[in-house]
Order: sequence, then structure tokens, then C-alpha cells
Amino acid sequence: MNTVELIKKKRDGKAFKADEIHYLINNYKNGKIPDYQFSALLMAILLKGMNTSETAALTNSMLNSGKIINLSSLKGYKVDKHSTGGVGDKTSLIIAPIVASVGVYVPMISGRGLCHTGGTLDKLESIPGFRTDLSFSESKKVLKKCGAVLIGQTKEIAPADKLIYSLRDVTATVESIPLITASIMSKKLAEGIDGLVLDIKTGSGAFMKSQTDSIKLADSLIKTAKSFDKEVIAFITDMNQPLGNYVGNWLEVYESILVLEGKIKNDLYSLSIKLAGAMIYFGKKAKSLQEAERIAKQKVENGEAFKKFLEIVDLQGGNVNYINNPDIYPKPKFVKTVRSVKKGFINEMNTYQIGMASLELGAGRMIKEDKIDPKAGIIFYRKIGDYVKKGDIICKLHSDSKSKINSAEEMIMESIKLSKTKPSLQKLIKKMI
Amino acid sequence: MNTVELIKKKRDGKAFKADEIHYLINNYKNGKIPDYQFSALLMAILLKGMNTSETAALTNSMLNSGKIINLSSLKGYKVDKHSTGGVGDKTSLIIAPIVASVGVYVPMISGRGLCHTGGTLDKLESIPGFRTDLSFSESKKVLKKCGAVLIGQTKEIAPADKLIYSLRDVTATVESIPLITASIMSKKLAEGIDGLVLDIKTGSGAFMKSQTDSIKLADSLIKTAKSFDKEVIAFITDMNQPLGNYVGNWLEVYESILVLEGKIKNDLYSLSIKLAGAMIYFGKKAKSLQEAERIAKQKVENGEAFKKFLEIVDLQGGNVNYINNPDIYPKPKFVKTVRSVKKGFINEMNTYQIGMASLELGAGRMIKEDKIDPKAGIIFYRKIGDYVKKGDIICKLHSDSKSKINSAEEMIMESIKLSKTKPSLQKLIKKMI
Repeated sequence: MNTVELIKKKRDGKAFKADEIHYLINNYKNGKIPDYQFSALLMAILLKGMNTSETAALTNSMLNSGKIINLSSLKGYKVDKHSTGGVGDKTSLIIAPIVASVGVYVPMISGRGLCHTGGTLDKLESIPGFRTDLSFSESKKVLKKCGAVLIGQTKEIAPADKLIYSLRDVTATVESIPLITASIMSKKLAEGIDGLVLDIKTGSGAFMKSQTDSIKLADSLIKTAKSFDKEVIAFITDMNQPLGNYVGNWLEVYESILVLEGKIKNDLYSLSIKLAGAMIYFGKKAKSLQEAERIAKQKVENGEAFKKFLEIVDLQGGNVNYINNPDIYPKPKFVKTVRSVKKGFINEMNTYQIGMASLELGAGRMIKEDKIDPKAGIIFYRKIGDYVKKGDIICKLHSDSKSKINSAEEMIMESIKLSKTKPSLQKLIKKMI
Repeated sequence: MNTVELIKKKRDGKAFKADEIHYLINNYKNGKIPDYQFSALLMAILLKGMNTSETAALTNSMLNSGKIINLSSLKGYKVDKHSTGGVGDKTSLIIAPIVASVGVYVPMISGRGLCHTGGTLDKLESIPGFRTDLSFSESKKVLKKCGAVLIGQTKEIAPADKLIYSLRDVTATVESIPLITASIMSKKLAEGIDGLVLDIKTGSGAFMKSQTDSIKLADSLIKTAKSFDKEVIAFITDMNQPLGNYVGNWLEVYESILVLEGKIKNDLYSLSIKLAGAMIYFGKKAKSLQEAERIAKQKVENGEAFKKFLEIVDLQGGNVNYINNPDIYPKPKFVKTVRSVKKGFINEMNTYQIGMASLELGAGRMIKEDKIDPKAGIIFYRKIGDYVKKGDIICKLHSDSKSKINSAEEMIMESIKLSKTKPSLQKLIKKMI
């Protein structure tokens, strides 16, 4: 096979065979295909697309560029949830303990925050001592002991994906449904799961701004998962405002504790129950999705989910004192209260902008090398549809930098639009596929 | 400006502004944009296209990445001819002396052969001593003295084109009309010419196989030349069989001598007169194209064109003894006669295949580093439409390698198709634009 001829093939809109995709991925991983050829190929894939079998073959080659966790020794169903990412999206922290407490295994590989979105690993690492870099055998021990483990992508998992993702990032080839699909699925399949629940975010804070694109991505992910004989379901959910009320790493752990303790029942709670329900149903612990959701709620009410969370934190090296007594957590140097300058209904929250404000406060990173301040972030007191008078609190900003708090405040003020009449509310869960 | 955002812009089908193109070319040339970003950009340009003003801006940035020969001290019109390349296409060697002998300057920058096509520089260098690597000031001296000079692209001429072409070659981004246009025109404009005659080849031995694509390319080249205030004309000409009867470097010099001496009047002669005529007309040495062609023919008949050729060869260091007595030129070790195995009319000559056979014999190069044997090549005794009996000579193969002569013979036999009835002949000059 000849690399230039293969690039030409895709450029001319033809479909690859599985062995051609394998040749490309394998040789790129081994350094035999240089970056400049692979980036031309990526652009051709982005512009000419890939069909279902090409996407499955791409996923397969990327998956097999590394190791697959062998969980066959653990009897029982293994399930994971994947979210395409947004602002304030901390459902993983709530779902994993709920589902594990029902007796379904949750081996979860998560990512870090980049640009306006947060990442589960960063949130977990805001808990002092918490380790997300467990080895395969350590992960398996934790999983066996408590039913869930939350780790990051190791060098052993889909190394081709890591290489390709870095190249896509700097060559304007991120926004390709087959490439996104293979990137997500190669990592998820490496977990050794039986089923997968997808949370595809749509709206101003999501990567997919339109519902049409979100459905296309969901469709591609579902087809690929099925071609690997995995059970799969996708929820298209709203990301036109932050999920829950807390944005920022420790602040999101804190809100997760409140939800797990049954103290708040907001949109974050509702979505977590929905997603956990689907996972419990896949794990055959309920006869219907409705029954599964009831079980999930029960696990929150009876305290078992929160207990499971403590267990996970403890087994992964985290200091549970901070979970039991969140108030002892270090405080930011500055807290600024943002108040409404006029009256009206909150009509719009530009969630991308809110994510960028949170990054400005120190809660996110622009490039991979940036350091995160776990204390930084935003607590919202109002959401879309709420009425505010002049002087009412909209949110509080947490940061160690006074100048950054001021610039973040400006960004927040710009991101929120008021209207005279109450806006019609967006559905939290727009579609189930 | 941000490179990733600019790649995204072209990826999404938007048009660049001139300063954006300048940023991209300039930073790529300076090594500030890495190959892997530039190749993704090239693929986006190939697939999304460029409009006329983008193509002109691209040409301008590539032209200004280097120096432009200043010929203002030479009084008189300067004109060049550019061919998109084919098999047996040696018109430059015939045209330059004809036009110079009329008193119109011909500053010609040519290329080398690659893959199935030959290159003017390789042909000229088959003349012992001939130098194509003259400096700017040496070139100007030769041009002033005899009215023509034939050199290669120096480091000073459009260096960005050289870099970009190398990258296009290995990333399947050669076949893009705006990229081809900018590559050709940036070099031609660097010659300091007033007018340009284009010979756009179409057919099995050309880069553009279809007439539609050839017309598109001609159109793009003409628009770009005009945007730089140059006079320009394009001929779409046939490349469904080799031009003339000789293929290979010295063999093509030999055929050029025969044409310049007025000894043969074949298709090569006709096309050379046509192209030279247009150049003479641009140079205002005739009132019409017809009159200009008559003058061109006259210069062959009265021996002035051949005398001018001797002058050019001499001034560029070539040994004129080989031009005056071609028979003293070294002979190949092997000459093989290829005969027809059945009777019929020659209906088709796959000219790409013929070019590859010539390469096999040693006359071409697959990669830039390959060495060329100037003696190697093919002499055709028949062309399309000719009737052959079994045993009639079709061609003779020249090479120093016996095994390569055998494989080239097979390629030639496969490339030629016979038919029972006489095929309708293709026009040599299909269109003038």
C-alpha cells in the first residue's frame, strides 16, 4: 500500500477498506507516516466523510493500537457513560456511585478539561490525594472491591487516538463525526464494557451547537457501538445553560456531594437519575427504564450512593474528610458577588462564554500545559426563566486573582440576556435514541 | 492571525483575503508554520477551491517570496511559452531560437522531467557542456547577446513554490487548479516577461486528461496572467500520442535539430510554428497571427533559427560540434526494434504508458534523485492513423540495459491498440483561448 495513493482515494471521495485503514493508523502510530501526510488525510476525511463500516474499522484500528482491559474475571455487567462535554457537567461523579451501589460495574475512563469545558479527572483531583493515574491492575482491584473506578486514559489505552487527537487539534480537523466517533469509542471499548450510555450535549456550551449535528453524532456512535456488539443508548440533552448551579472543579465535587446526599433536586439530579437509570437497566437490575430510575432515586434517598462515593474516593487515595466535611476545604482569596443591573427574566446564558469566564478565574486550561486552581469557579443563584430585580444576586465568582475576577465578571454580564416576558423553557432531555 | 483559524476558514469554504494568504505563504516559507498544518491547508484548498482573486494573491505571495529578474535595461518585448508537459514535447528548443531570431527576447525558465514526462532542462543538459544553472547576471548577458536564454528555477526564484511543491507531491495535493496556477505563474512572472503563450496539453500523456479540465486550467492561468497586466494566449493541444517521433533527452535534441534545419515538417513542426507565431505577434513583429507564423516558417527555411540555436548552445557552454554533427554523439549499448504482431490501423497510443516505458529505458526519473541516461529513449516510426502490416517497425528502443529494454518493449506493446478501420484523427490544436 502507498500512503499518497490512499490520501488520494479519500480526497476523491472513495471509501477505505478495513486493511487500508489499519495500514494508515498502524504506520502513523509507528512513525512511518509523517505528520504532514496524516494531516492531509485528516482534512480529506473531515471534508469527504466516512461511512459506517469505515468508522467501525477506524475505531477498531485505534482500539487495537493499545491494550483492552480484560474484565472477564469480574462476573457481572460492566457499563459506562460518556458525555460529549459541557459546562457544569459533573454527572459522572454522581452516576458512578449510584450504579455501583446497585451492583453493576462502572469502569470509567475520563478526560481533562480543555478550553471552555471541564473534565472529570480535574474535578476528582481537586479532592486532596485522589489518584486518577491508576495502573490496569490497580484499577481492576478498585473496581472489584467497590464496583466503580474513575481513571484517565493511560499510555496503554488507544495510543493512536492520543497522537491523532493532538494533530487534529492544530490542523482544524476536530469537527469530524467519524473522527470524533472513533476517538470516543476506541477509549470506551478499551474499558472492557458490555454497554454504554451516551449523553450528547447540544447548545451554546456544547461542541455540537445544533441538535441536527448532535443527532448525527449520536447515530454514528450508536452504529459503531453496535458493530462491536455493545448495548447502547443515547440521550440528546440541553447545554444552553450550565448543568446544575456550580461550575469549577472543587465546586462541582461539592455540588455532587449535595446531590448524592439528597439535599438538592435540580436539573443535575434529574439528568443523573436518567443516565444512571439507563445503566442500571442495561445491567439487568430492573425490568424497565422507569423501574431503574426509581432504584437510582432510592439509592440516593437511603444514603447508599453517598456511602459508595466515599468508598471510591477512599480506594483511589482521596481524603474522605473533605467529602464528609466540605467546609474544611481551602477557600479562594476573593469571592465577588455579581448582581443584576436591571429587572427581567433570564432569557439566555451563553454557556460557551460562561465556560470561558470560569477558565479565566483559574478553573480551566487553554492549552494542555496550563495549571488549574481547584478552588476557582462560579456558583449560580439563577437559571434561565428566573425573574430578577435590579440588585438581585446572579452568581458568585471564586478566584485567587482580583484582576481575573473583574474580567470574568464582565464576561458573565455579557453572557446573560434578560427579557420582559418569561421565555419558554428548553427541555433538559431533548431526545432518546 | 491564527493559522488554525485560517485552515478552518478554507475548510468551511470561505475565501481568503490577500493579507491572509500572504501570512500563510510567508510564515510557511520562514518555517513558522509547520508542514503538518500547511498540508491540511493544501488539502482544504484542493477540495474547496480558490476564486480568481485568491489565486492571484497566492501567485503574488509566491512570486514575492523570491526575486524577480529585472530586464528593464533590455529594450524590446520579452515573451515566454509554458507547456503543462507531456511526452516528446520539445517545442521550447525549437521556439526559443525561432523567436529570438526575429528580435523578440525569450527569457525561459524550465523544469526537469518527473514520472512519465520529460523536462526541457534534462534535454538541454544532454548536450555536453550545456549549463542550465546560470546566475541572474549570467542569464541577462546571454539574453542580451543572443535574444534567448534557457535556465532552471534558481533558489532566488519563487522559493515558496519549491517548498510547497515538494509538500504537495507527497500529500496528494498536486491536482488543484489554483495551486497549479500559482506554481506556474509565480515562476513565469519572475522572468520579467511582458507576454506569455500557454500550451495546455490534454489527453492520455498529459496531467489534465480531459479537455474540460484543460480549459479550466487555461482559464485560471489566463485570468491570473491578466491580473498582472501580462498579454496571454492559451492553446489546448493534443497529448494522446507523443509529440513528434522522438522521446528521450538527446533523441529530442536530435529531432529539434532536424526541425530547425527544415528537414522534417511533422506535428512537432506545426505546433512549434503555431506557438512561435503567437510569441512573434505579441512581440509586435507581425500584424496578425498568420503573418507571424509565416515569419516563423521563414526563419526555419533561411537557416537563421538553426544559427540562433547554435549561438544559444555556445553561449550556455554547450559543445556545438554535437549540434553540427549529431552522429558523433555516444550510442546506446542496445537498440531493439519493436515490430507489429498483426495488421491494422494504429488506433490508440497510451501516452502515459509510453512515457513510463521511456522512463524504464533510463530517460526519466521516478523520484527527483534518479539519474538520467541522455542516450536512452524511443524513436517512433508510426503514429495514430497509420496502417501497419505484421512485422512492420513501430519503434526502436535505445538503452544501456538489456533487461530494461525487454520490459519497456512489453509496456510499448500494451500501450498501442490496433483497429480494422482507420480511426478519425484528433486535431493537434483543439482550441485557442
